[in-house]
Amino acid sequence: MPILIDIRKLTIIGKLIQHGAKNVADSLSTMADIEADIQIKSLSFVEPGDIPQEIGDGEFYHANIRLTEPPYGVFLMTFDSLTAREIAEHMTGQQATSGSLNAMHESALQEMCNILTSGFIDGIANTLETTINMQTPTLERADSEIIAEETLSHIHADSLSIVLDSVVDLADQDTEFQLRIFLVPDPGAFVNLIDKLDIEEIREIEDPTERRGTDRAF
Amino acid sequence: MPILIDIRKLTIIGKLIQHGAKNVADSLSTMADIEADIQIKSLSFVEPGDIPQEIGDGEFYHANIRLTEPPYGVFLMTFDSLTAREIAEHMTGQQATSGSLNAMHESALQEMCNILTSGFIDGIANTLETTINMQTPTLERADSEIIAEETLSHIHADSLSIVLDSVVDLADQDTEFQLRIFLVPDPGAFVNLIDKLDIEEIREIEDPTERRGTDRAF
Repeated sequence: MPILIDIRKLTIIGKLIQHGAKNVADSLSTMADIEADIQIKSLSFVEPGDIPQEIGDGEFYHANIRLTEPPYGVFLMTFDSLTAREIAEHMTGQQATSGSLNAMHESALQEMCNILTSGFIDGIANTLETTINMQTPTLERADSEIIAEETLSHIHADSLSIVLDSVVDLADQDTEFQLRIFLVPDPGAFVNLIDKLDIEEIREIEDPTERRGTDRAF
Repeated sequence: MPILIDIRKLTIIGKLIQHGAKNVADSLSTMADIEADIQIKSLSFVEPGDIPQEIGDGEFYHANIRLTEPPYGVFLMTFDSLTAREIAEHMTGQQATSGSLNAMHESALQEMCNILTSGFIDGIANTLETTINMQTPTLERADSEIIAEETLSHIHADSLSIVLDSVVDLADQDTEFQLRIFLVPDPGAFVNLIDKLDIEEIREIEDPTERRGTDRAF
């Protein structure tokens, strides 16, 4: 059965992501005292079966939550070991000896995942004029195939996955963290939420002071 | 009146763009003997009114064509003066003295625009299993507001614009050209074309040898 959306409402998906990213930046500032800019470098739509390929080959850190409210589905964030070390070292101020993370590093990473996940989901929920309660994501490390298998086992093969390549650009230094975010909503619930929104309203709630960099803000 | 598309078919838009970009690379190779990789750095959906902001502030080179066959609408490509000079110098092997382009440079630029435009449109047409005849685009230079005004005067304000930031990465040297591409199809005709396509069929015509870089191939 087709799940229909007005094609002109696709601009709302861009706004959702823009607001999610902005909220992540705000959350990083208030919750972790980190001034950062979040840029979405690319947006694409793939089928769930292509997600392992999108994550990449090998082992990745990942945090995921199942959304128990509309738009349901899964939020998944992945990043590689290099990014993990950079985040952990930045947050703790401690170097990782011979590349391996200690308990404090792991804890800082988990904290960062919580901030990024809740910031993003809250930003999207605000734009959708709803709330999305969620559990705390657990940070784990696994092969991309296993990540996809465990995270998406309950997702229909013909769901739509929104894939975002994002970069957290720290203001106070020349450091960037590269993250990949997968939003795999229940297509019907997602379309329902978007259908309720008016494009003009979305515009109004947009922050007029928001910066638009050449690096593309959606 | 809403123009409805099955949300799961959005993956086809990604494939269209991927095939368009691949065809540009092939055209550059056969028509201009330039080995290049085309990467789509970002994809977004905006309303036509936001296009001047997407192009950027100031003067830009631009080439546009009106499509007189489905999906109708407009194809617009923009790039800045720096990129224009780099392309022109690369194609002619002549440096631009004090930054200004001579007749040979201008002619090379026009040639490049023809290759890029026809390559992209043909790639999309192949994927849509149709042909899209088109005129030769004329390369001009103007302020972004004027470009949008002249190009989009006949476009409905609620049309959907697909915006692509793309990079042409030359194989034989460390040079990249940054281009922005706007596809503003007639929403109804675009949805009609996509509706006719089967996601599985699109998969089959995909080149299995196609490279997938970490920079995102759609």
